[in-house]
Amino acid sequence: MKYCFAFLFAFISVSINAQSLKVSDEKTLANFYTYALTQGKSYEWLQHLTTQIGGRMPGTVAADKAVKWGEKTMLDAGFDKVWLQPVMVPHWERGNKEVAYYTINNKKINLPIAALGNSIATPKKGLLAEVVEVKSIAEAENLGEKLRGKIVFFNAVMKSSHIRPFTGYSETAGMRVNGAKAVGKYGAVGVIVRSLTTNLDDYPHTGVMSYRGIPENEKIPAAAISTNAAELLSKHLKENPSLKFYFKQNCKNYEPKLSYNVIGEITGAVNPENFIVVGGHLDSWDLGQGAHDNGTGVVQSIEAARLFKLMNIQPNNTIRVVLFMDEENSGTGSIKYAADAKEKNEKHLGAIETDSGGFTPRGFSIDANSELFSLVQTWKPLFEKYGIYEFFKGGSGADTSDLKSDTILLMGYKPDAQRYFDFHHAATDTFDKVNKRELELGAGSIASILYLMDSYLK
Amino acid sequence: MKYCFAFLFAFISVSINAQSLKVSDEKTLANFYTYALTQGKSYEWLQHLTTQIGGRMPGTVAADKAVKWGEKTMLDAGFDKVWLQPVMVPHWERGNKEVAYYTINNKKINLPIAALGNSIATPKKGLLAEVVEVKSIAEAENLGEKLRGKIVFFNAVMKSSHIRPFTGYSETAGMRVNGAKAVGKYGAVGVIVRSLTTNLDDYPHTGVMSYRGIPENEKIPAAAISTNAAELLSKHLKENPSLKFYFKQNCKNYEPKLSYNVIGEITGAVNPENFIVVGGHLDSWDLGQGAHDNGTGVVQSIEAARLFKLMNIQPNNTIRVVLFMDEENSGTGSIKYAADAKEKNEKHLGAIETDSGGFTPRGFSIDANSELFSLVQTWKPLFEKYGIYEFFKGGSGADTSDLKSDTILLMGYKPDAQRYFDFHHAATDTFDKVNKRELELGAGSIASILYLMDSYLK
Repeated sequence: MKYCFAFLFAFISVSINAQSLKVSDEKTLANFYTYALTQGKSYEWLQHLTTQIGGRMPGTVAADKAVKWGEKTMLDAGFDKVWLQPVMVPHWERGNKEVAYYTINNKKINLPIAALGNSIATPKKGLLAEVVEVKSIAEAENLGEKLRGKIVFFNAVMKSSHIRPFTGYSETAGMRVNGAKAVGKYGAVGVIVRSLTTNLDDYPHTGVMSYRGIPENEKIPAAAISTNAAELLSKHLKENPSLKFYFKQNCKNYEPKLSYNVIGEITGAVNPENFIVVGGHLDSWDLGQGAHDNGTGVVQSIEAARLFKLMNIQPNNTIRVVLFMDEENSGTGSIKYAADAKEKNEKHLGAIETDSGGFTPRGFSIDANSELFSLVQTWKPLFEKYGIYEFFKGGSGADTSDLKSDTILLMGYKPDAQRYFDFHHAATDTFDKVNKRELELGAGSIASILYLMDSYLK
Repeated sequence: MKYCFAFLFAFISVSINAQSLKVSDEKTLANFYTYALTQGKSYEWLQHLTTQIGGRMPGTVAADKAVKWGEKTMLDAGFDKVWLQPVMVPHWERGNKEVAYYTINNKKINLPIAALGNSIATPKKGLLAEVVEVKSIAEAENLGEKLRGKIVFFNAVMKSSHIRPFTGYSETAGMRVNGAKAVGKYGAVGVIVRSLTTNLDDYPHTGVMSYRGIPENEKIPAAAISTNAAELLSKHLKENPSLKFYFKQNCKNYEPKLSYNVIGEITGAVNPENFIVVGGHLDSWDLGQGAHDNGTGVVQSIEAARLFKLMNIQPNNTIRVVLFMDEENSGTGSIKYAADAKEKNEKHLGAIETDSGGFTPRGFSIDANSELFSLVQTWKPLFEKYGIYEFFKGGSGADTSDLKSDTILLMGYKPDAQRYFDFHHAATDTFDKVNKRELELGAGSIASILYLMDSYLK
């Protein structure tokens, strides 16, 4: 396209219900977006967090650095109060890079592989065994004792036909989380899972797995292999069902460690003891830089509150930015935040979480009673000029759902998700995959919701 | 984000007006999307077109290759008829890479620079002159004779505050197109323009310029410099307003050359003499690979028609895929297509153009009479489940607008545009910037519109 003066948008003008919204709301929202796009800090913050600190697994040195960075960034942004909330977090590290291969037709095939988070290591010499390929936990369990001595290969394809990629993720993530737990009891010796992306590529996508509730002797090592590797292995298993697969991983669960949620506040002018939370998680997987998951959410949360300062808007209630520690592994940060809030009897009016990537804004999920759900629908027309049309019932996110009550308004920021699983939990989740404008439009959108929450929640 | 079974979409179910839409339409559209996402060819076609053929300026060897590729691809796709429509196109080539620099404080500053399309070369030794910085053509014209002997530096910033990036482009592209024409008459010796992107980066973004209607002796060379270079030059001009800027470019306008629009048809079952066009332009700028501009539109157009074949849908009317040659330079291909159609008295019911990048679908522009505009609004509910909400009055695109009549329905495919000007007309417009799912969702969207046009236009 070269040149298009003829390209004129003629949107139906937003009709605001004067009874429920203030005339000034439209103008205030426009300012949030303008400031985010022209005086935004989110992109340069993200560059630092991702390229200078990088992947930040809970309990690691990088996570400690991220805590310090978050605290300093909020202090520099002029927040009224910034503090660290101590929390004991699990500490798992990958160790040396994993190795996997098998031999077929006298040819050695090396595969891209990455241990799943929380997994134990293989024996020091690695693990060599025949492979049983299945498409589901149920299929594996049906095989029962036939799994003894075998590596179970969960090769369920994340379907590309779903319009919303998260649907395909929800259908398959259970194998990654619970696959090893389900087959250890039958004497399986290891688990490999097909990476959760609709792409055919060479990147293993890690993610959390769990041994919860099973005895020590049933714990077996689990890892993800790339989708291309999964396709190839599946093909070769048809040629030679008794081929032996080797993998070696060196990951380790250490003792839990002291870490922190990083919290910053802009004090409310009218009801400082009422809180509205905006947040994302500060920790990330270690293979990439934790850019879309969830560096973008971290910087958008800080930026959304900073825009209030920049525009000299003092909120009625206290706006609290929470950078949650340990979302990816076991959620200790969000549990701690909610428990402390309950103990202190803090009144939380609302919360918005951003943990679905830093892409173009599309909508918001809403988890609230019907009255609050209806209230949010009155805000919808304000967002159409920003290309935001979707206000739907759905969970707010893993870190804010612990705040759930009969009276709180929980919301999730839901940007365009088509690219998300190109990067999710993989080495590809790096700063260069984030577009500045998309990130900033997200910050403007989240600030707008915070403002409306602050104006209309009681 | 790790794991979100709780993430449930609860969209208000699409309520179809049974009087105006067939019940089967919803199902057919679902199939278009499913086939595009699971059996699509667009991504592998795009890979070939962009990485094997690359940038394809009208009149060049690469453009010839692209014509042959387009013809073969449509034949392989099983179209009923494929042919080449001859058209004489301009032939401009960049020649050796351009050079630009100036010296300040005894330091030589090299700048990323690229000649604008159609521009003449500098003298062989290059051009050295003082610089006059302006923000608009009006400001330059006010300076009049003060421009004599000078290089005019159009340094208008493409505003980042617009929510729709095309708005900022429309505000500034006039300087690129007409800047040199406007100042040559005052004796200016050259023009440099700030690249049209909201980013601060090191890529010159080229694009067409015009000498139309001015005498030979007023033609002066014109080039784009990167935005970072523009910022630096502007700063240094404040320090030393008489610094001398040097640039050398070797581009050349050759004699017009025979080229082709590539056309493929799926013959209509009921009214084969009625045509519905889907198309994008096959030519591209030379700095990158012409991926988003407009390889994506080319492959989406072919794919949209191929989906009819794949799903065994024979259209009522003839669907014609047109890969237009020479959109970027002078539009000879679209003029030729419209002229031939008029000469043959071909009845065109509708046309949809895709030339705004291969990003996630957001909406469609509509250029038609009020009755047709209203008809299209009845289709809107069908698209909500695909995240498409915007059906607005606007031009269809540069290649289809020549078909404009009182009775035709012209539409433009309008995906998310936030990333478009990262790549537009620059070396960054490469295959790796295109996401497979976004591309395929676009193909499904365009096929759906074609299907509805075919079902409801008369």
